[in-house]
Amino acid sequence: MNSFKDLSAQFEAQFKEVAATGNSSLLYEASSYILGIGGKRVRPVLALMGNELFGEILPESYHVANAVELFHNFTLVHDDIMDNAPLRRGQATVHSRFGINTALLSGDVLLVKAYEELNKIPADRLTSILSLFNRTAREVCEGQQLDMDFEKKDVVEFRQYLDMIALKTSVLLAASLQMGAIMGGAGLGNQDHLYEFGKNLGIAFQVQDDYLDAFGDPEKFGKVRGGDILANKKTFLLIHTMEEANDQDRLKLQQLLGGSEPGKVEAVLEIYRRTGSDEWADTLKEAYFQKAMNHLEDIAVISERKKGLADLARLLLLREN
Amino acid sequence: MNSFKDLSAQFEAQFKEVAATGNSSLLYEASSYILGIGGKRVRPVLALMGNELFGEILPESYHVANAVELFHNFTLVHDDIMDNAPLRRGQATVHSRFGINTALLSGDVLLVKAYEELNKIPADRLTSILSLFNRTAREVCEGQQLDMDFEKKDVVEFRQYLDMIALKTSVLLAASLQMGAIMGGAGLGNQDHLYEFGKNLGIAFQVQDDYLDAFGDPEKFGKVRGGDILANKKTFLLIHTMEEANDQDRLKLQQLLGGSEPGKVEAVLEIYRRTGSDEWADTLKEAYFQKAMNHLEDIAVISERKKGLADLARLLLLREN
Repeated sequence: MNSFKDLSAQFEAQFKEVAATGNSSLLYEASSYILGIGGKRVRPVLALMGNELFGEILPESYHVANAVELFHNFTLVHDDIMDNAPLRRGQATVHSRFGINTALLSGDVLLVKAYEELNKIPADRLTSILSLFNRTAREVCEGQQLDMDFEKKDVVEFRQYLDMIALKTSVLLAASLQMGAIMGGAGLGNQDHLYEFGKNLGIAFQVQDDYLDAFGDPEKFGKVRGGDILANKKTFLLIHTMEEANDQDRLKLQQLLGGSEPGKVEAVLEIYRRTGSDEWADTLKEAYFQKAMNHLEDIAVISERKKGLADLARLLLLREN
Repeated sequence: MNSFKDLSAQFEAQFKEVAATGNSSLLYEASSYILGIGGKRVRPVLALMGNELFGEILPESYHVANAVELFHNFTLVHDDIMDNAPLRRGQATVHSRFGINTALLSGDVLLVKAYEELNKIPADRLTSILSLFNRTAREVCEGQQLDMDFEKKDVVEFRQYLDMIALKTSVLLAASLQMGAIMGGAGLGNQDHLYEFGKNLGIAFQVQDDYLDAFGDPEKFGKVRGGDILANKKTFLLIHTMEEANDQDRLKLQQLLGGSEPGKVEAVLEIYRRTGSDEWADTLKEAYFQKAMNHLEDIAVISERKKGLADLARLLLLREN
């Protein structure tokens, strides 16, 4: 079994060619630029691990891995346009550097390139993988639309927020694993468990992300503490606190969010703590992590084969054990 | 053999369901909106005709037809964002009505829906159709990027302009026909001739479009005469005139394009006429039309079967015979 690190390196080595420009057009320069910025390549490695859970990694699984990474970068380019974001992974976003029109079009090309990669997999698996890929692509778009809708709403229910997060971030992780499993010849029951493992892991990861933004060590995570609070971003913590805080705190929270006074972050964190949202988030993350691990447990292959995925889950969720 | 009108009606009847909203999200409202605005549905009918040239229309060919129409609408939505266009077919563009972000995302969803339709065609034809579809999708994006690049350039060579037009508008017409031919079981030689028929027809149509904008009867075509001139748009006429005019006229043309004096349209048209660009365009259109018809002629099926396509070509190019 290969580790995340090994597979990540193997993926990267062959992805360089996929990321290289087709011709000298600005269009390909822009799409190569975003692919070159890097990132952890979690999704393609999940696809490879999904295959390896059930058998040796097929050469064609790299095409699946390439497709999910191309798709992920397509969403980054278009999301950054929609969010008007100047930076991505510490570098200028594609639209900041190449202009909105070329960014839009290079996103489109990345999506088409993803389908070009998928069309290289064996015909007997093409239909089932395309079907999952298409459904997932559509869900990710739906998630992004919900996210934009929620920005304009004062109140978002916990359940709605959870659904949005699942669509926007978890389903692609889950589908990457399942596509790998299809390549590895897994049965439908095992595919489902692996999908649910990925989906729950993704939600746990997002809860952790929201928690660390508020309560993590800024130096350790390289972010401004309370960045989400300063941006008035809806998070698991905010939504739970709005639902659970007493009337006085809820009112105060609303006032704080409406303004940008100095000390805003600390004041909001204080309300989060008083409502017990910090501990709640930790419990919630743990619950989704356990749910994920239970699904991994239920997959009918020997435990030894699951080690890579179990280790990765612990790594992503910053767990010592 | 079915006529364009028959096939267009048959296409439209089943496309209604494809265009209907999946759920109540703004995203699907926006994508349904553009699909509902209509248009002539030339591309899907070409796909059906491409099939019928070689055999009875398969039920699955409607999925190919749906895919090309969905793809075409995806390009319209994104192009309108890039061109900052307020109107499309006399109605508000998607971004004018739903905002840029939802328009961007609904374009993405239309592209994904196109691939969902393609995934419904028989497995034995999926790979070859996907391959052609992907290449074409990429070429259309490249064409749009070239078009934007050319807007910023003072001088564009005729050859470059021709290549851009082929990518931006002709290859999708050509590919629609060829995908239909693949569904109909055509051999590679016949597929190539049909593709070239569509490509040359598309160029002839674009030459005609540029000509009519300048010299057509505004009442008959429902456009402002010289709309392209007023918008300083690069056209076959402009590019040819810049290359062929004498120094005095070229200088005058550059001055006219730089300004917006009253009488600009008539003054530019006068230079076009003096350079002989009106007659040149008519000859060019005729040459591409003949090239297209020669390729249609070379397809190895009985003439009777070609009648629908030959009639359509004459209809699109406003020919009496």
